Amino acid sequence: MRGEDEAKVGTARRIYQALKAQILDGTYGARDRLPSTRALAAEFGVSRTTVTVAYEQLLSEGYLESRQGARSRVAMLGGDETARPRQKPRPIAAERRPVAQARLSRFGQSLGEGPAWAPPVAAGLIADFRYGDLSGADFPDAAWRKAVTLALRRRPRRLAYDDPSGALPLRTALQPYLWRARGLRCDPGQIIIVNGSQQGLDLAARVLVDPGDRVAMEDPGYVMARRVFSAAGADVVAIAVDGEGLRTELLDNLDDARLAYVTPSHQFPLGGVLSARRRQALLSWARRTGAYVIEDDYDGEYRYDIQPIPPLQTMAEAENVIYLGTISKSLSPMLRLGYLVVPPSLQRAFAAAKQLVDRHSPSLEQEALAAMISSGAYERHIRRSRRSNGRRREALLAALAAELGDRVTISGADAGLHVAVWFNQLEKADESTLITKARERDIGLYPISPLYSAADAAHRPDRAGAVMGYASLDVPQIGQGVAALARLLAEWLD
Amino acid sequence: MRGEDEAKVGTARRIYQALKAQILDGTYGARDRLPSTRALAAEFGVSRTTVTVAYEQLLSEGYLESRQGARSRVAMLGGDETARPRQKPRPIAAERRPVAQARLSRFGQSLGEGPAWAPPVAAGLIADFRYGDLSGADFPDAAWRKAVTLALRRRPRRLAYDDPSGALPLRTALQPYLWRARGLRCDPGQIIIVNGSQQGLDLAARVLVDPGDRVAMEDPGYVMARRVFSAAGADVVAIAVDGEGLRTELLDNLDDARLAYVTPSHQFPLGGVLSARRRQALLSWARRTGAYVIEDDYDGEYRYDIQPIPPLQTMAEAENVIYLGTISKSLSPMLRLGYLVVPPSLQRAFAAAKQLVDRHSPSLEQEALAAMISSGAYERHIRRSRRSNGRRREALLAALAAELGDRVTISGADAGLHVAVWFNQLEKADESTLITKARERDIGLYPISPLYSAADAAHRPDRAGAVMGYASLDVPQIGQGVAALARLLAEWLD
Repeated sequence: MRGEDEAKVGTARRIYQALKAQILDGTYGARDRLPSTRALAAEFGVSRTTVTVAYEQLLSEGYLESRQGARSRVAMLGGDETARPRQKPRPIAAERRPVAQARLSRFGQSLGEGPAWAPPVAAGLIADFRYGDLSGADFPDAAWRKAVTLALRRRPRRLAYDDPSGALPLRTALQPYLWRARGLRCDPGQIIIVNGSQQGLDLAARVLVDPGDRVAMEDPGYVMARRVFSAAGADVVAIAVDGEGLRTELLDNLDDARLAYVTPSHQFPLGGVLSARRRQALLSWARRTGAYVIEDDYDGEYRYDIQPIPPLQTMAEAENVIYLGTISKSLSPMLRLGYLVVPPSLQRAFAAAKQLVDRHSPSLEQEALAAMISSGAYERHIRRSRRSNGRRREALLAALAAELGDRVTISGADAGLHVAVWFNQLEKADESTLITKARERDIGLYPISPLYSAADAAHRPDRAGAVMGYASLDVPQIGQGVAALARLLAEWLD
Repeated sequence: MRGEDEAKVGTARRIYQALKAQILDGTYGARDRLPSTRALAAEFGVSRTTVTVAYEQLLSEGYLESRQGARSRVAMLGGDETARPRQKPRPIAAERRPVAQARLSRFGQSLGEGPAWAPPVAAGLIADFRYGDLSGADFPDAAWRKAVTLALRRRPRRLAYDDPSGALPLRTALQPYLWRARGLRCDPGQIIIVNGSQQGLDLAARVLVDPGDRVAMEDPGYVMARRVFSAAGADVVAIAVDGEGLRTELLDNLDDARLAYVTPSHQFPLGGVLSARRRQALLSWARRTGAYVIEDDYDGEYRYDIQPIPPLQTMAEAENVIYLGTISKSLSPMLRLGYLVVPPSLQRAFAAAKQLVDRHSPSLEQEALAAMISSGAYERHIRRSRRSNGRRREALLAALAAELGDRVTISGADAGLHVAVWFNQLEKADESTLITKARERDIGLYPISPLYSAADAAHRPDRAGAVMGYASLDVPQIGQGVAALARLLAEWLD
């Protein structure tokens, strides 16, 4: 019996200490109601008496206030305590524990080299030309809501893990869509639904690349792809690009690569379209060496004055091609959906990897997207979105021509949601100054240098450059942003 | 000029060939309408004339039918062609391409060893005791729909990648929830939102374990955890469990492990609760050796006649503990949401790993869950769900006692959503026969042997065993399933 009583007191003390700490943290703010003794007793699996003991101690110490018949509230503590914002409790753990040195794997250590995530800063800027962001105004709210509502209505009798390759309705909707939109033919079994193209890249790196393997990568190229391959321990070989995309003749001496990463429809960031001759050369190289080719078709929906370019995957010799698509540019980067189309011989390995990594992508988004594609709403949205971005692109090109003229050289404007801009009067070394000066004038401008594997790459023009994304801006903002940039350059250089 | 005409003819031929192939595939079935020439022209960025050339060729060859003013439809082709179901086109790629031998990484090769995903078979069964599935009837449809609707209403002006650690509203809602529900104190910065606990395990393995490193793992234990560590190249050391959970004295000689994986609140699958003495021993070992401990609290919400057991993470010495929680057992495994609580010294590495792996978890589910927690609906649901599962558990235990009596020994019934059942009259070698016989009588019964690291483990009872999950079944089904099992055993053994 005595032991039981002691246990009760111990539990009450634990509840008391924990509640007190939460009040001091600000987790419970002044005047907040604490949970009822009944709820807390049920939650802790103890008697209400035990909770009441804890509450009474807090009352007697002045942390709580109580009126007859009402639930206890946190008292106004005065001084610093009440000034603490509710949502930002003190970092308790850091206080309680010594900040130990983390023991990380080589993968874990390699992550430290990348930049930390930063929230968008657009709010205070004249124009934020950050690439990858989309305008909320373009999002097809009504169609998406309808599709989500449809998906919510589906009530399975049993809730169980779904197919790691992805929800069948989505894969069977994507198969004809990919044909209509990109001329791409595949079996739904070849489609693997992933959480955005980032996960597609990571899966490919894990399934295909061992530490020390060589991976060919466009230079300049997509930083987050390079980081994935580097983190996998790959020896990333930078292959220069020019106006026709990857310079495939530079692959001739690369016999031992396991993988090449390319953006043939619209090279990121320079915008070249891989020529037919080079497409053949790339696939011949892959066939000869046994390397796989990841074709990242990240903005294949957006093309303006040019003919559509069928993906590499559609070519007869494409048995080693892994096609990667995303809805981050067509709908929203926050939905986290993308798709791989893999050769039949890789289906099993990619599905097993996806299962091991996170079982499958969330069913709700998958089913909503399937509904949107099947109803035609997705393609209607893409047509509308292509027109909006076409207007933005024209506004940007017109403003750059009118305001900056010969000061800049532009590449990659035929497709996609960004252009690469070279500043003819500024040397490479001036680039970071340009970015800083732009930010001081409330222009969000982003340097091109980080997209090169090495600052001293011979094929890198000795000029300052920027990647200017326009998909998140409205037309007047684009004009104002470019005008501000022009004023900056005029004052700086003239 | 001539080149342009040739290009047009080439494009028309390509469109013709592709449409024809899709008709033969069954992607477009008999009587289906093809897209309008205008839509297809817009999609391909060609003139309507070019599309019309393709359509006319298909008409002249009898693949299409056309009436004045109406869109072309696919003709009834007769014979095999029309018999093909629409949703299952032939695997084109497999025809076109030789099925090449895949070249996989060591990780990719190791995946082949796991079982392929199989859809649930519950439909035809008297009772499917598969662990991990939940009943659709328990899902809080109205509350979830309300939460999703709230989340959908949030319309950011700019669509951009969110914080890799997870949406701030969710992390700030989880922080007090974890305290209320599990007595767990942390700063929201320590919380990393993941796509279910599977991704939490995979991230931990990648960030903390190098190939060749030793990882201590409960034996028997959670297969998908063991597979994650093995795929990461770890040397997985099996540590026996008994009625008090992990036998921590067996860690004494293990000085070089980087990680231990444990389920202290409810050992999976045997159900022991790690005793206070062993908790101290485990944490002392971790502190002494510098190993991390992953505490998988996979079903911490479900406990019945016992006192709640605060997680390891709440102990003062827990600076090396990584806590892992999930909503797969409380809401649905198809939502793919879970959370890690990591020591402050690991925050940066886990957030960077999450960013590299898939940027962040989908915003919609995160914001919906945040809304559900903040409104109290999540905890109300858990209380309801705990009662439902308590009833199922009682039904299962009562049926097992009444129908099977001494034939079985049950463990792990105090908490969670499953029990481990040992069949006293059947040897280990009879287990697979038992499972097969059960399936022949439409009972979904799942063997315990795969959860052991080795078939000949000395600590493994020489009896047939099964893991019986009950969260997906209604009470009558449970009774019928156990009765059918009893008949099977009676006929087999008596």
